[in-house]
Amino acid sequence: MKTQSELVVKKFGGTSVGSIERIENVAERIMQDFQNGQKPIVVASAMSGETNRLVRLAADINPQYRGLAYDMLLASGEQVSIALLSMALEKRGLKAKPLLAYQLGIRTDSIFSQAKITSVDSDKLTDLVSKDIIPIVAGFQGVNPDGSITTLGRGGSDTTAVALAAALGCEQVEIYTDVPKVFTADPRLIPKAREISRLSFEEMMEMASLGSKVLHFRCVELAAKFNVKIHVRSTFETREGTWVVAEDEKMENPVVSAVTHDASTAIVKLFPVPFGPSFLALLFDSLANKGVIVDIITQSYNEEGQRLAFSVNESDLYMVDEVLKSLSIDAKIVVLRDMAKLSVVGVGMANHPGVAARFFNVLSQKEVPIHLVTTSDIKISAVIDRKNLDKAAQSLHTEFELDKE
Amino acid sequence: MKTQSELVVKKFGGTSVGSIERIENVAERIMQDFQNGQKPIVVASAMSGETNRLVRLAADINPQYRGLAYDMLLASGEQVSIALLSMALEKRGLKAKPLLAYQLGIRTDSIFSQAKITSVDSDKLTDLVSKDIIPIVAGFQGVNPDGSITTLGRGGSDTTAVALAAALGCEQVEIYTDVPKVFTADPRLIPKAREISRLSFEEMMEMASLGSKVLHFRCVELAAKFNVKIHVRSTFETREGTWVVAEDEKMENPVVSAVTHDASTAIVKLFPVPFGPSFLALLFDSLANKGVIVDIITQSYNEEGQRLAFSVNESDLYMVDEVLKSLSIDAKIVVLRDMAKLSVVGVGMANHPGVAARFFNVLSQKEVPIHLVTTSDIKISAVIDRKNLDKAAQSLHTEFELDKE
Repeated sequence: MKTQSELVVKKFGGTSVGSIERIENVAERIMQDFQNGQKPIVVASAMSGETNRLVRLAADINPQYRGLAYDMLLASGEQVSIALLSMALEKRGLKAKPLLAYQLGIRTDSIFSQAKITSVDSDKLTDLVSKDIIPIVAGFQGVNPDGSITTLGRGGSDTTAVALAAALGCEQVEIYTDVPKVFTADPRLIPKAREISRLSFEEMMEMASLGSKVLHFRCVELAAKFNVKIHVRSTFETREGTWVVAEDEKMENPVVSAVTHDASTAIVKLFPVPFGPSFLALLFDSLANKGVIVDIITQSYNEEGQRLAFSVNESDLYMVDEVLKSLSIDAKIVVLRDMAKLSVVGVGMANHPGVAARFFNVLSQKEVPIHLVTTSDIKISAVIDRKNLDKAAQSLHTEFELDKE
Repeated sequence: MKTQSELVVKKFGGTSVGSIERIENVAERIMQDFQNGQKPIVVASAMSGETNRLVRLAADINPQYRGLAYDMLLASGEQVSIALLSMALEKRGLKAKPLLAYQLGIRTDSIFSQAKITSVDSDKLTDLVSKDIIPIVAGFQGVNPDGSITTLGRGGSDTTAVALAAALGCEQVEIYTDVPKVFTADPRLIPKAREISRLSFEEMMEMASLGSKVLHFRCVELAAKFNVKIHVRSTFETREGTWVVAEDEKMENPVVSAVTHDASTAIVKLFPVPFGPSFLALLFDSLANKGVIVDIITQSYNEEGQRLAFSVNESDLYMVDEVLKSLSIDAKIVVLRDMAKLSVVGVGMANHPGVAARFFNVLSQKEVPIHLVTTSDIKISAVIDRKNLDKAAQSLHTEFELDKE
């Protein structure tokens, strides 16, 4: 794979192309980059609101249905935005070509709504670029071996952009969004949140899986795999955003880089459950088959029997209920709603002992009970009552010196 | 081409799939046909209103733009409706597969927005049908040799349906619409209009080009070429509709089968214009290049000079104006707006002399001035003032014995 540094893959999210006015703004920006000698390859999401409109249409017919037809339906949103963006560029005298996944050979497996990209033909893109035609690529979509449209799941357009950059041998990809940088915490929750200028892939992956909505896990994972730097920046400002890079490129490593949260958590407790792993395998297999992502799992055993607790997204509770009913489990089931998962993330944690102690101390001082805990080399997460989220997050943000000076 | 009489291509128009409720209704109808042993192949248009929404989005960026991006944009409408219809069928326990033009190899030339189908792979369709999977095909779209989406122009989904039927060797195609039959005249204009049970391809083609909106010219032309009978019927009723068939299958040939009209006509008159055909060639070439369809053309010559008059669709007047300006013609230009073209059509006319005389007599008795006239073997058309359209149409409808008894 040859490095083609003049090629820049630019991805514009749903809010960036959310209206005709904003599409014109994006076209203006691309034109300036093109005139400055860049060779842009553009990836666009559906206009904001459009995917939700399509989801509602589908739900009116069958709220449970997922599969080939659903993916074809959702993929139409990107088709509209890339066509309009191409028209806006052509109006400015540039040559642009809107391209769908089947035209570019963005091949995936056949897991509808969660498809993974298996390969991308980059020849067509380089050919267009060599003729000064700006490729405008539909994000979020691929084609399976049968030639049917697949979609890549939430944040799929980011993944498309990184996959194209990797296939083209680009060093970086620009992800344009509605925030100027990645923050140390959600600024709506913590007004003192600071902007982060550099993050490691590992930190960003943890943040994504812990509730930060700026980038999605799979996109960062793919960028790490192919060492494509991600430049997250605002569509509405020109200043530099946040760089997500390999750890060795990151100069300073604060102990904790960010506080993240996920406010839509619920806990399911079962007692007593059959002893041994076969029951757990059956339960979590059944949940996975229904698309329920189980996050933290704990079990404990004493003379009274085995206890099991796990956290899920609150919106998946009805599916959990269905699965538990289908397994006819003879156990007391307790569901705790209105929970939140609060986490601190930082590659510096690996070399700084005592972070966990500081974490628990803060929550204890603020009298915040902890329901579940999980840790890794670079993060600590606790599930707490949602009503305590604000004060707990603010205290951790201060404790780990993330507040604005 | 083997005749596969069990296969039935069914095309549902925009109003037939215009809401979730109507899509469910169509699914119900297809299910019944399937359960009765039919092997349906379904073609669907975009939900009514959707194409207009997309056209407005495009117009907000560039009202003049036509081309690749525009066709990709418009084609998204059918993608939505076929996905939803497939979901509605699967909900009913049937197997259905939504299919886009690129998946079926519906190949066209590269004339965007007016593409002509060059070939269709029917193997994939017969393969699906043999597995009891109902193909749900996006109408209106094709792919050009480059693999880009093209669209077939107004009424394109009808053309898709006929092309599939021809490729599959079907004897007939069902066109489901919002009227139960083709009428002897527009019932909104002439309350006494009768339903027609059988029409020849030639009559239907004339009617289509003279303003009847039920079927489009190209669809009927293609059906005539491959001798595919068209059954026009209502989505909301089960009774038989109108059959459009080869002339030799038509039992009764009334002198006049229908009165049609086009209420959006305008006339352009030029005097004096340069003598000879070179000026006319230049003028009509320039108009064609701008996409202006010139309908009736007359010219006359006397000692004062050469006079030219032609009729166009009123909405094309601004393009005509542009072309005339660009040619810097040194002639007086008179534009007559608010005109209407009124026609009588019937294969019986070829064998019944005197139809033209009856036509002109009626208009003369009703004191309706005629601005332009054109005739063929099976039709007579006159451009008249729009304000006279109602009484003229009613009188002709009565004169040629088309009124309900």
